Amino acid sequence: MLGLMQSQQLLISSLIEFAQRHHGEGEIVSRRVEGDIHRCTYREVAERSRRVANALDALKLEFSDRVATLAWNGYRHLELYFGVSGSGRVLHTLNPRLHPDQITWITKHAEDRVLCFDLSFLPIVKAIHARCTTIKHYIALCDADKLPADSGIAGLLSYEAWIGAQSGNYRWPSFDENSASSMCYTSGTTGNPKAALYSHRSTMLHAFAGALPDALSMSARDTVLPVVPMFHVNAWGLPYSAAMTGAKLVFPGPAMDGKSIYELIEGERVSFAAGVPTVWQMMLGHMQAAGLRFSTLKRTVIGGSACPPAMITAFNDLYGVEVLHAWGMTEMSPLGTVCTLKNRHLALSPEEKMKIRLKQGRGIFGVDMKIVDGQGAELPWDGKAFGDLLVRGPWIISDYFKGEEGSPLIDGWFPTGDVATIDADGYMQITDRSKDVIKSGGEWISSIDVENIAMAHPSVAMAACIGMKHPKWDERPIIAVVKKPGAEVSREELLAFYEGKTAKWQIPDDVVFVDAIPLGGTGKMQKTKLREMLKDYRLPTA
Amino acid sequence: MLGLMQSQQLLISSLIEFAQRHHGEGEIVSRRVEGDIHRCTYREVAERSRRVANALDALKLEFSDRVATLAWNGYRHLELYFGVSGSGRVLHTLNPRLHPDQITWITKHAEDRVLCFDLSFLPIVKAIHARCTTIKHYIALCDADKLPADSGIAGLLSYEAWIGAQSGNYRWPSFDENSASSMCYTSGTTGNPKAALYSHRSTMLHAFAGALPDALSMSARDTVLPVVPMFHVNAWGLPYSAAMTGAKLVFPGPAMDGKSIYELIEGERVSFAAGVPTVWQMMLGHMQAAGLRFSTLKRTVIGGSACPPAMITAFNDLYGVEVLHAWGMTEMSPLGTVCTLKNRHLALSPEEKMKIRLKQGRGIFGVDMKIVDGQGAELPWDGKAFGDLLVRGPWIISDYFKGEEGSPLIDGWFPTGDVATIDADGYMQITDRSKDVIKSGGEWISSIDVENIAMAHPSVAMAACIGMKHPKWDERPIIAVVKKPGAEVSREELLAFYEGKTAKWQIPDDVVFVDAIPLGGTGKMQKTKLREMLKDYRLPTA
Repeated sequence: MLGLMQSQQLLISSLIEFAQRHHGEGEIVSRRVEGDIHRCTYREVAERSRRVANALDALKLEFSDRVATLAWNGYRHLELYFGVSGSGRVLHTLNPRLHPDQITWITKHAEDRVLCFDLSFLPIVKAIHARCTTIKHYIALCDADKLPADSGIAGLLSYEAWIGAQSGNYRWPSFDENSASSMCYTSGTTGNPKAALYSHRSTMLHAFAGALPDALSMSARDTVLPVVPMFHVNAWGLPYSAAMTGAKLVFPGPAMDGKSIYELIEGERVSFAAGVPTVWQMMLGHMQAAGLRFSTLKRTVIGGSACPPAMITAFNDLYGVEVLHAWGMTEMSPLGTVCTLKNRHLALSPEEKMKIRLKQGRGIFGVDMKIVDGQGAELPWDGKAFGDLLVRGPWIISDYFKGEEGSPLIDGWFPTGDVATIDADGYMQITDRSKDVIKSGGEWISSIDVENIAMAHPSVAMAACIGMKHPKWDERPIIAVVKKPGAEVSREELLAFYEGKTAKWQIPDDVVFVDAIPLGGTGKMQKTKLREMLKDYRLPTA
Repeated sequence: MLGLMQSQQLLISSLIEFAQRHHGEGEIVSRRVEGDIHRCTYREVAERSRRVANALDALKLEFSDRVATLAWNGYRHLELYFGVSGSGRVLHTLNPRLHPDQITWITKHAEDRVLCFDLSFLPIVKAIHARCTTIKHYIALCDADKLPADSGIAGLLSYEAWIGAQSGNYRWPSFDENSASSMCYTSGTTGNPKAALYSHRSTMLHAFAGALPDALSMSARDTVLPVVPMFHVNAWGLPYSAAMTGAKLVFPGPAMDGKSIYELIEGERVSFAAGVPTVWQMMLGHMQAAGLRFSTLKRTVIGGSACPPAMITAFNDLYGVEVLHAWGMTEMSPLGTVCTLKNRHLALSPEEKMKIRLKQGRGIFGVDMKIVDGQGAELPWDGKAFGDLLVRGPWIISDYFKGEEGSPLIDGWFPTGDVATIDADGYMQITDRSKDVIKSGGEWISSIDVENIAMAHPSVAMAACIGMKHPKWDERPIIAVVKKPGAEVSREELLAFYEGKTAKWQIPDDVVFVDAIPLGGTGKMQKTKLREMLKDYRLPTA
């Protein structure tokens, strides 16, 4: 027997419709490519996203056709989020930090029909458009009078002219909530990039779960700054959860430097910000150098890669900002865990709380996890046993788009490629990437643990630990270090800094000072490239 | 094109499975019918709800068969919530405050197969069981040694013996998320009671929306006291949202008096409580008389009927507890609106904030509203125009169970029977029930407005406004008043109290002092009965 409840599909269009009706005056503030600050409301974004839908109809785009973006975080990108998906097309957020050849390959693999891009990325589009054979329409996200005359891109239109020609009236269609809504390619350290193909249903359930108090806790009283790019797993779903709750949105545009981000937080009274550690590192550096404080920021979610303990301490102790460590993946929409405390932790000492905060956190409702050993047998949740982390849930992929290699699932579980522990309270801690873990004498050494100790040294700006071949131990760790500007630390001083902080056999065999550690398109350290950089290096202990 | 995300049905069993796995040590505290305090964990509730599922299998109950309860808020009732719905049967929470004849009629209409009841309700069950022809199994929610020997109920089993004979191992089945999960009959002031038949999907989406920061804001850091009964629209969904978030649950059992509720709040460090105004009135009375304070309570949600402004002020000003005014209906699962503030309200003065807090609140995500005039034309959201309130959303009914009178929907919208205004920010305020509004000389007078003024008088414990026939004005309001114990106020003093607080023509024509105002099964004032009580009353102005 079925229940007798109203039948409504879970569709992304319902988010912007709700925001217009219940939070019409809610603010969207964007720093634009032009450098100025632009202000609009949910009502205006809703109206303009309906124009986008009409404009896509006018281009005769079919249901599920892909519309690509190469764009920073801003109101026009937000309008595309709702206009493209809401009208039944698939929003494909391209990562502009990838190599132009990769971007070209991705647009062809995705069969993108339209490309909307910020003028910052005109050089990329100029370089690739002739090879992007599936793309028939190019839209520059700018006013009509800013459109470059000599782009060489046939039929290039300005976004404002494109949607300005359309009506703001549009009736959002209803369709199967399992229909594809958006897609995102993983950076793909090995092989070709692979895409997660999200559905309206998965996006909506993720928006619900992500807005809960134990996850990102979003409300109409929040002012939210997604520093994490909208081309990086839909800015962790923040644009959707914000529309669901009517939170004020503040978009940084291209200005991701510490000073610009800090000024935006203060100027717009941001209460909640989200981003990867590298961005916060820059901002904290700027603040420390200039002796600045926050006046409104209360919480920050840090994810994308493991957050160094020193950063959590700095936010918490120096600035009174609660750091929520989070973990997820492109294949997970992306939210998997958030490190919020439980009832019985509230009475713990600051030190004991910090021990919990260092973990990646508890599974948010909807995400189930397990850790398994090399044979696939489930390991206990005791905070000690570590093994390959597998996840499942309604916003986790079942297959990659055009999954040439077959389903990645193992008995219905998605293998994350991370190695982790889970404690009795369900708090998960990544100990390493499966491919980065260092196997020394039959024991595993977590490269992240080794890095975190180095990062706590006052002279260290960034540190990356990799394993080096060793005749006796198989592999031994070394630490590659970038010093802070003007700071000094010797190899011996840094190795001595490890004494008492970890087991002797987990102390790296050597320190290599480098000018920079290679970062990938999403700000993560690229250890493959670091290994290439150090290919002539010889381990002194070998 | 469909997305490529894992396919999972939204099922109630997933809530208790999640709570067991991620909040296994989370506490469930219950005051029992026996008077003692019982403590258990989500892990134990999960295990025992699997025993319930096995016990229902052993009774050969089919998918969608109804299992009825006559029970207070407690851990055994919670186990039935998950065991009955999770195994594919329909949980039917009977309201013990209804007349036994009504309960009998309802069990037959619902075709209940099993009845689980607290021993408090043994007299009811004894009185009706011979007539409840569809019920084949009776389970008393007690230990085996507490089972009454002489009940006269054939085959009566104790709950503990019933589930104790079963295994705690059970694999929750997967099925269509639109399947019926639970049902609740409306108190039915006119005609026969009618039932809302909830689905797993509607219950899960309601649990998500209800737990959001702008609704009830539930987290693993909360200790939640549902004073609202589990037989009253599933205690507003709190048992589901609590399992979703791992909140500690505290159940009051049958002890709903002010002293017992206060002691439970203090003893269990409750942070958040939810109930109808009448219960809070008793508790505030007890606290004021004994000079007590709260040490942990931060928020209370008040719904079920309009909350008198004086109560909001008392909670807020005297005790520092934030009152969230809420509104919903059995037909709405029940949450429709919650009165949480927005970003731009935070800087308002306490007086201006109070003006907002008096409203029933904003639609939570998923609920859409409109107000219409007598011809069905939509009225503006200006906070002034008032009309019939209609709602729609995925946790609002499309039909009543066995809906003999056809679908209640009007063009897809459910007519609430309330009259309301909605302001430009989406805040809805009930001005009356359609049937209670007083039509005086072509103008409408809100009976609730008239009551709220009387309730603010220090000598008034309860007040009900009804319309009386008037030869010239069609109807004129009178106010029926229950004085506080030992307090005195005259008719003239009370009428003078209205001066300056409302328009002259909205001041009641008379005051009638009564010993009590009749309350219905859910604690709401029954104006139909009040009108019967006053059938010989003559309006002095007529």
